[in-house]
Amino acid sequence: MARKLDDDERAAALATLPEWALVAGRDAITRSIRFKDFNAAFAFMTRVALKAEKMDHHPEWFNVYNRVDITLSTHDAGGLTERDVALARFIDQVAAGA
Amino acid sequence: MARKLDDDERAAALATLPEWALVAGRDAITRSIRFKDFNAAFAFMTRVALKAEKMDHHPEWFNVYNRVDITLSTHDAGGLTERDVALARFIDQVAAGA
Repeated sequence: MARKLDDDERAAALATLPEWALVAGRDAITRSIRFKDFNAAFAFMTRVALKAEKMDHHPEWFNVYNRVDITLSTHDAGGLTERDVALARFIDQVAAGA
Repeated sequence: MARKLDDDERAAALATLPEWALVAGRDAITRSIRFKDFNAAFAFMTRVALKAEKMDHHPEWFNVYNRVDITLSTHDAGGLTERDVALARFIDQVAAGA
């Protein structure tokens, strides 16, 4: 099972994820992304869903039209782990059009 | 453009949508659905996304693992319209395995 990041590891990971912010009151990170329209937003969500299923590590996310708000945390570990960092990096790549 | 339902129309529509509840403080309806797993939840979301795009009428929704919380309202009309009722009926059909 993934282990929670300690404070130094969390700080180091966040330094490499400038688009993400810590969630108040939770050991979790969040990013909101706007796309051209719903079609583009859901295409993004589909790519992330396939990756999440492959990783067996899933986001919490909210979508309204062209906006997707994503929160990542590892429920089993009770906080942020390397798996969240890996999924965040994938999300950044997809959002950047990679 | 779709017209907001009046009180009688809203009541009549809700009577035919027993799985849906009014949202406190908004002219909107909501339903939460649990699936077997993320795979089933995202398959549902994909079917709804294709329908929403075809209708050009999109849900607000939140997903975490096997749960999908959906809110429907017509932003342009400032409240519930027949388009929300139609999308809710489609969602009920898909959730029922149709």
